[in-house]
Amino acid sequence: MTVVADLVAALGSGAVRVVDLTNKLSASTPTLRLPEPFANLIDFSLEQVSAYDAPGPFWKHHNIRTGEHIGTHLDAPVHWVTGREGHDVSQIPPARLVGPAAVMDFSAEASADPDFLLEIDHVKGWIAEHGELAEGTWLLFRTGWDRFADDQERFLNADETGSHTPGISAACAEWLATSTPISGFGVETVGIDAGNAGGFDPPFPAHFHLLGNDKYGLTSLQNLASLPPTGAVLIVAPLPIVGGTGSPTRVLALVDGQ
Amino acid sequence: MTVVADLVAALGSGAVRVVDLTNKLSASTPTLRLPEPFANLIDFSLEQVSAYDAPGPFWKHHNIRTGEHIGTHLDAPVHWVTGREGHDVSQIPPARLVGPAAVMDFSAEASADPDFLLEIDHVKGWIAEHGELAEGTWLLFRTGWDRFADDQERFLNADETGSHTPGISAACAEWLATSTPISGFGVETVGIDAGNAGGFDPPFPAHFHLLGNDKYGLTSLQNLASLPPTGAVLIVAPLPIVGGTGSPTRVLALVDGQ
Ligand SMILES: [Mn+2]
Ligand SMILES: [Mn+2]
Repeated sequence: MTVVADLVAALGSGAVRVVDLTNKLSASTPTLRLPEPFANLIDFSLEQVSAYDAPGPFWKHHNIRTGEHIGTHLDAPVHWVTGREGHDVSQIPPARLVGPAAVMDFSAEASADPDFLLEIDHVKGWIAEHGELAEGTWLLFRTGWDRFADDQERFLNADETGSHTPGISAACAEWLATSTPISGFGVETVGIDAGNAGGFDPPFPAHFHLLGNDKYGLTSLQNLASLPPTGAVLIVAPLPIVGGTGSPTRVLALVDGQ
Repeated sequence: MTVVADLVAALGSGAVRVVDLTNKLSASTPTLRLPEPFANLIDFSLEQVSAYDAPGPFWKHHNIRTGEHIGTHLDAPVHWVTGREGHDVSQIPPARLVGPAAVMDFSAEASADPDFLLEIDHVKGWIAEHGELAEGTWLLFRTGWDRFADDQERFLNADETGSHTPGISAACAEWLATSTPISGFGVETVGIDAGNAGGFDPPFPAHFHLLGNDKYGLTSLQNLASLPPTGAVLIVAPLPIVGGTGSPTRVLALVDGQ
């Protein structure tokens, strides 16, 4: 049998499962709140156009209004000024959207310290235990933050000193972007940078380094706890928006076993 | 090696390819035009909110406005009055979104007759040649219509007698919906029904029968010509919109070989 025929058989028997890593989209999906003077995107909303009634007797359908960077979504290189000459979301090579997942679990550390940052040594420690990051890997940073994904306030965890959510150090972002063959970096929080990363050097270093080096960002992931550290295939499916800087994105994983 | 580990290796070596079946989304993506008195959805559009400037000095981002049923998109059961008690697009079991593709090529017939309809005997003929439809199959109806996918007028092919695009007969839609284990039915045209199916009995029989029997619709597919008749895995990735009747959808396929 071929690899794809084996996959078909394994999906049919349940030997391979499809795991959904996506937050549901509604008007209450938690979203980023940029401070003044920055302009925020609109939240997600549906507008009913017909519901088995006069404007459409047999069908129901809606219009959608949303920002590109709402809910579980992908950041394309062109989202950031450092990637402005790079790909928009419609130009991403499809091969980069399907690849191995490397799940790094720092949920205990992030639970103890909401400002926890992933450092180069954390990643090197994971590699020492689980092996090198293969070409096209999606590095998924598990922090347990998905438990707040239905609660805007706890998800952003803001006080008078700003938002306190885990992220990645500037040094680690630069190293991942320039010294590893990852395809992208995925998080459970509202954005790929830490909540207080506007004060880092450079500001928002995950965006700065990753998008500036043709890596992608992926946010508001859920259910990373159901993935093994290695051995899952991630499927990242943004809408191919011409000129788009990102897109709400369905994210699925293929996992061995019941 | 496990099935998923084999897949990772095959993606890495190029022995399995990722094929994109999605039309790009922009303001010129061809869309359905319902006649009076029915209400149409809005077309897709982007609104720039910042572009490395005052409202966002380091980033570019946009708001999105679109109908649910625009471009390459999925029809959920609740889209149709016959499926009104069924699943919305966020409730679709993830296992139903990844499955074997059965590609039925009637592009020669549709090229000769734009009103060509897929009949039960066509499907039975395909099964006699290629084998039974497995549980969870996505039946993909190739008509060559994707060659018009950047041209609204040719895509809808309307004249004073209505729209002339290929589809499926009422008998075949009912038979597929009630007598086969398919997950969904995918087409290259603007909707899962023929252009003139408003005059069929029942009107729009693909919607009526398939969505009323917990099957999904998938429209405006491209590149079906690069899939084998059997042996590809289809990945259907709608946005999980709470209450949504459908969604613009990224559709990818995994295919053996270079
Ligand atoms: Mn973003
Ligand atoms: Mn539709």
